[in-house]
Amino acid sequence: MNTLGSIFRVTSFGESHGAGIGCVIDGCPPGIPVHLSALQKEMDRRRATKSYHTSRQEPDRVTIVSGVFEGKTTGAPITCFIENRNVDSSSYDELRYTPRPSHADYPRYVKYRGYADYRGGGRFSGRITAGFVAAGYFARLVVKTMHHTQIAISSSIIEIGGLPPEKIEWDALQGDSLGGIIECRICNLPVGLGEPVFDTVDGELAKALFAIPGIKGIEFGAGFTLARMKGSQANDQFYMEENRVATVTNHSGGILGGMTSGMELVFRVAVKPTPSILRPQQSVDLRTGEETSLTIKGRHDPCIVYRAQPVVEAVTAIVLADMGLRNGK
Amino acid sequence: MNTLGSIFRVTSFGESHGAGIGCVIDGCPPGIPVHLSALQKEMDRRRATKSYHTSRQEPDRVTIVSGVFEGKTTGAPITCFIENRNVDSSSYDELRYTPRPSHADYPRYVKYRGYADYRGGGRFSGRITAGFVAAGYFARLVVKTMHHTQIAISSSIIEIGGLPPEKIEWDALQGDSLGGIIECRICNLPVGLGEPVFDTVDGELAKALFAIPGIKGIEFGAGFTLARMKGSQANDQFYMEENRVATVTNHSGGILGGMTSGMELVFRVAVKPTPSILRPQQSVDLRTGEETSLTIKGRHDPCIVYRAQPVVEAVTAIVLADMGLRNGK
Amino acid sequence: MNTLGSIFRVTSFGESHGAGIGCVIDGCPPGIPVHLSALQKEMDRRRATKSYHTSRQEPDRVTIVSGVFEGKTTGAPITCFIENRNVDSSSYDELRYTPRPSHADYPRYVKYRGYADYRGGGRFSGRITAGFVAAGYFARLVVKTMHHTQIAISSSIIEIGGLPPEKIEWDALQGDSLGGIIECRICNLPVGLGEPVFDTVDGELAKALFAIPGIKGIEFGAGFTLARMKGSQANDQFYMEENRVATVTNHSGGILGGMTSGMELVFRVAVKPTPSILRPQQSVDLRTGEETSLTIKGRHDPCIVYRAQPVVEAVTAIVLADMGLRNGK
Amino acid sequence: MNTLGSIFRVTSFGESHGAGIGCVIDGCPPGIPVHLSALQKEMDRRRATKSYHTSRQEPDRVTIVSGVFEGKTTGAPITCFIENRNVDSSSYDELRYTPRPSHADYPRYVKYRGYADYRGGGRFSGRITAGFVAAGYFARLVVKTMHHTQIAISSSIIEIGGLPPEKIEWDALQGDSLGGIIECRICNLPVGLGEPVFDTVDGELAKALFAIPGIKGIEFGAGFTLARMKGSQANDQFYMEENRVATVTNHSGGILGGMTSGMELVFRVAVKPTPSILRPQQSVDLRTGEETSLTIKGRHDPCIVYRAQPVVEAVTAIVLADMGLRNGK
Repeated sequence: MNTLGSIFRVTSFGESHGAGIGCVIDGCPPGIPVHLSALQKEMDRRRATKSYHTSRQEPDRVTIVSGVFEGKTTGAPITCFIENRNVDSSSYDELRYTPRPSHADYPRYVKYRGYADYRGGGRFSGRITAGFVAAGYFARLVVKTMHHTQIAISSSIIEIGGLPPEKIEWDALQGDSLGGIIECRICNLPVGLGEPVFDTVDGELAKALFAIPGIKGIEFGAGFTLARMKGSQANDQFYMEENRVATVTNHSGGILGGMTSGMELVFRVAVKPTPSILRPQQSVDLRTGEETSLTIKGRHDPCIVYRAQPVVEAVTAIVLADMGLRNGK
Repeated sequence: MNTLGSIFRVTSFGESHGAGIGCVIDGCPPGIPVHLSALQKEMDRRRATKSYHTSRQEPDRVTIVSGVFEGKTTGAPITCFIENRNVDSSSYDELRYTPRPSHADYPRYVKYRGYADYRGGGRFSGRITAGFVAAGYFARLVVKTMHHTQIAISSSIIEIGGLPPEKIEWDALQGDSLGGIIECRICNLPVGLGEPVFDTVDGELAKALFAIPGIKGIEFGAGFTLARMKGSQANDQFYMEENRVATVTNHSGGILGGMTSGMELVFRVAVKPTPSILRPQQSVDLRTGEETSLTIKGRHDPCIVYRAQPVVEAVTAIVLADMGLRNGK
Repeated sequence: MNTLGSIFRVTSFGESHGAGIGCVIDGCPPGIPVHLSALQKEMDRRRATKSYHTSRQEPDRVTIVSGVFEGKTTGAPITCFIENRNVDSSSYDELRYTPRPSHADYPRYVKYRGYADYRGGGRFSGRITAGFVAAGYFARLVVKTMHHTQIAISSSIIEIGGLPPEKIEWDALQGDSLGGIIECRICNLPVGLGEPVFDTVDGELAKALFAIPGIKGIEFGAGFTLARMKGSQANDQFYMEENRVATVTNHSGGILGGMTSGMELVFRVAVKPTPSILRPQQSVDLRTGEETSLTIKGRHDPCIVYRAQPVVEAVTAIVLADMGLRNGK
Repeated sequence: MNTLGSIFRVTSFGESHGAGIGCVIDGCPPGIPVHLSALQKEMDRRRATKSYHTSRQEPDRVTIVSGVFEGKTTGAPITCFIENRNVDSSSYDELRYTPRPSHADYPRYVKYRGYADYRGGGRFSGRITAGFVAAGYFARLVVKTMHHTQIAISSSIIEIGGLPPEKIEWDALQGDSLGGIIECRICNLPVGLGEPVFDTVDGELAKALFAIPGIKGIEFGAGFTLARMKGSQANDQFYMEENRVATVTNHSGGILGGMTSGMELVFRVAVKPTPSILRPQQSVDLRTGEETSLTIKGRHDPCIVYRAQPVVEAVTAIVLADMGLRNGK
């Protein structure tokens, strides 16, 4: 469904070509100062891209509809709304019954029995992640209040199309698309976030991150590489670092037994190449069951990895805010 | 916390060296025939291993305490209990305040303020997965009633220590340990399981699977490899296969937009090498803050991948039963 | 928190004197025709009153922001928004630190540490029930699809100030206020709604109804009177009515063991007199701790029972839609 | 379903004539000393009765299966189990398809399609409340750690069959049964427990209390009487009592806007007369649809109010522990 979290809860709503998209954030503690310009800055990060100049140039301007009073959170649900402007749905008419390969179109059609709003991907558009980013802004504010040290969430793109990002020649792509790998690091987390055995930090992060369109894999610490190491290499041995328990290596990525260990939390997510490519592809007409060819029109971002990056951080902040509040911090 | 699921809900309880371990399964529909011998067979699969002969030889005998009457489920909560026998906790005394590297010991100590049962790993022992397997037995029964076709969950170990499993020379390990990669495949799933945008099939599976001790990564379909492909290679184009929509390739692993696509659901999980190895390791005394050396005693399974395999299937069944019931099947 | 329900879920947001109030409705099945005029009619029922002519005369006009496409529900979250117009918050300035007797002001101040929006009661205003009514409209549509017979939710006001409603002389109230009792009846419900032992139909209804400001009691069937009857009088004996199991009496109010029995579901709720009265009352200044006198200004509805009536029906519909979907109908 | 609560969560399991009944308590903080004798004392309170000498004389002996180590809670799920002994199910054979009036038998049969364990009422027996009482013991321990002052939960029976309890002549009942009213009072609660707008203290208490078999109504403070008062009489005016905000009256029963006000929390519940009476009653055969006469055999408690009293307190403690932990206390 469309609500994430247990105490810090985000409800997502809206469609790509409807009136707008947004979120309701419940469980945000009262008294936290809110700066619209900082929120807007996060929104703008999601719009920036190295690979692509969008024709929807206007900013995603956020309106705070409820839950903030006199510049501070009130403890009441915070509603953020981003209007959809300049939408042109005409190119989607012919896609209504012809699912685009590797898009959500086909199972959406079956599950919602043809009633879903298909325009611009509807509810399954990357656009809904603008609401995640707005919620992530508030989550970061909560995370900052959680702990005496300064929790910091950062990320970097470590691969695009299997190469270092700077090596990509965008002009040579010619209507094709690329995926990539984003690495996220969170430092200064307290020890013991996570509610085993089922509501683990890694499990909750993974669940939330798979809500971002295009994510196909996640690994913590050394991840899949760990599966190829021996225990004697893999184990993170303990030592004391200035009166604080630390580990010599961090193959565990800051998580042990589903709880934060106090070491840097590290994970990587795999983002698939944008399925919208400018080449004829094979599809079927869902009304007649006949095979057909499909050509996606319009300009599409050939690599959503850059735009996914602030979304990954936002979703991470949302989960950590919730896990922090659940832990009573 | 210790409950997983929304309609088909599993509550896990018990510790490795306490009275026993078990689970309460809520939301199981009434009237499903239960065969204790089949349940016991699943339990025995979890105990089998290629790498190791355990000294706790007795079977994990399951008692059904509630929820089954006259050989059928009643719709009431099903409680399964597995007694702990022949436990010898003496070797754990010296580990009480000295966390084992890459075990849950350290964050557990901090989070539960030293009150957790540390014997045999307590709540963080692989032993609690026996309860998952018992719940998985019932989940498979539910999954079978979900759909007219025969949903089948199977898995294989595709790597141990980076090699094909049959290439491992267990005798050469000498007190060290290995991890591996398990691939799970589910065929004949209906289209449209999964409750986007947050309760996706991939997200719910990932969350649940990270509850299995030692899992450090998950990827669906081509996963991390997908991040290195171009869209034109990655996209799964549609065709008609005997009046049924199908895709030429299945790089998406049977999931699109967080919903099942009707193609085979495929995922792989990375299992880290068992952290218990028979070599001196560096640790700290949590009472004094002094660095110390630690040697883990007793026999430990040098590779939990074989034992994790039926657990991965069981947890998968639990999630699919829940997603199926949520979808109204 | 601000989300109600398990499958059919309503998230409430907004404050009395903020930008507006509304709700997000998740889990509504796709393909249900939506009629804005019928929705608006429900909204208007909540505004009508016999006791009072409000100075906020403009209608509560609902905008559907998401989840409806081409006149039908899509399965995506439905967002309803009602703008606040013509609000005058000036009379609330002096109430900011002086809690009104029997209002939520005092615990709200403590819980939200003074940061809550106090204007017009903020989040604790009866105004937020406009969002419940909007959600109730959709819930009724779902309830109608649930069962082959025609489920009907109706209610009546059986007492105002201890008297039959028609006996009240409103002009004689002189700045004082009255409460009352609302009886709600639902007929043609299927047998077996309710998820015992904890998620009972009576329990879920009670929980939801206590979210309506002013409700102080609820009883099902003969309720408190049942506590004064003997078993031989109280028991509802069974007979066959046209091939259908029925009971001679219905002291149980259509609920047995937390499940619907197929008989008419009957409950009554007690609504307290509006706490806003035009007389000086005793309060305290929360900053200084000094006792003070308080006079509430402006016109206030001396009896919210009429306005609560459609809200009671709406909340009942929300719970029944959820219980119906949970039951797989 | 069978789990109650959000952070402090109780999962109930077991049937009246199965192997036993019990509960799993999740979310109990670690380090709380547990005294088996005190727990057993609570269990014994539930068994005592003024109206009836039961033939099942043996005590409800609780076994703690998990979650307690070295005499203290560990933070892991606490499992309590109470074996069923001396059960004689023979008298229930003829009730299998003949529902007892005002029992759960009929909707249970329909909902669980005849597969439910009917012996001794199965899952709908008052016996399952023994598990609630066990959980309540732990909840009281949590409640005690919540606040600097001493929170105290007490209750009294204020009516039996419409009379003061001491006026009842039990011997004159002659196979009939009586209900009654229990009043519960909780003092020294902090201000601000409750999570409006939906997870109110009154709503959560009401929901939980309706899980107790036989409860048909609940009112807070003056409750239904409040609906007959004028605002000028009903309002609880504020004053200062030794540097603490207090109210002159407490018609609100310690709850305002769904939150605790710091005044004594007061509620009353209506308990219906035991439906098992020793007189022929009218029923139907659920297989044939024929009307039939039914005579319930065996000895049955003619008034469960005494036994319900400690259950009401236990359930109250469970809810307050959860609301306290949710509030971060």
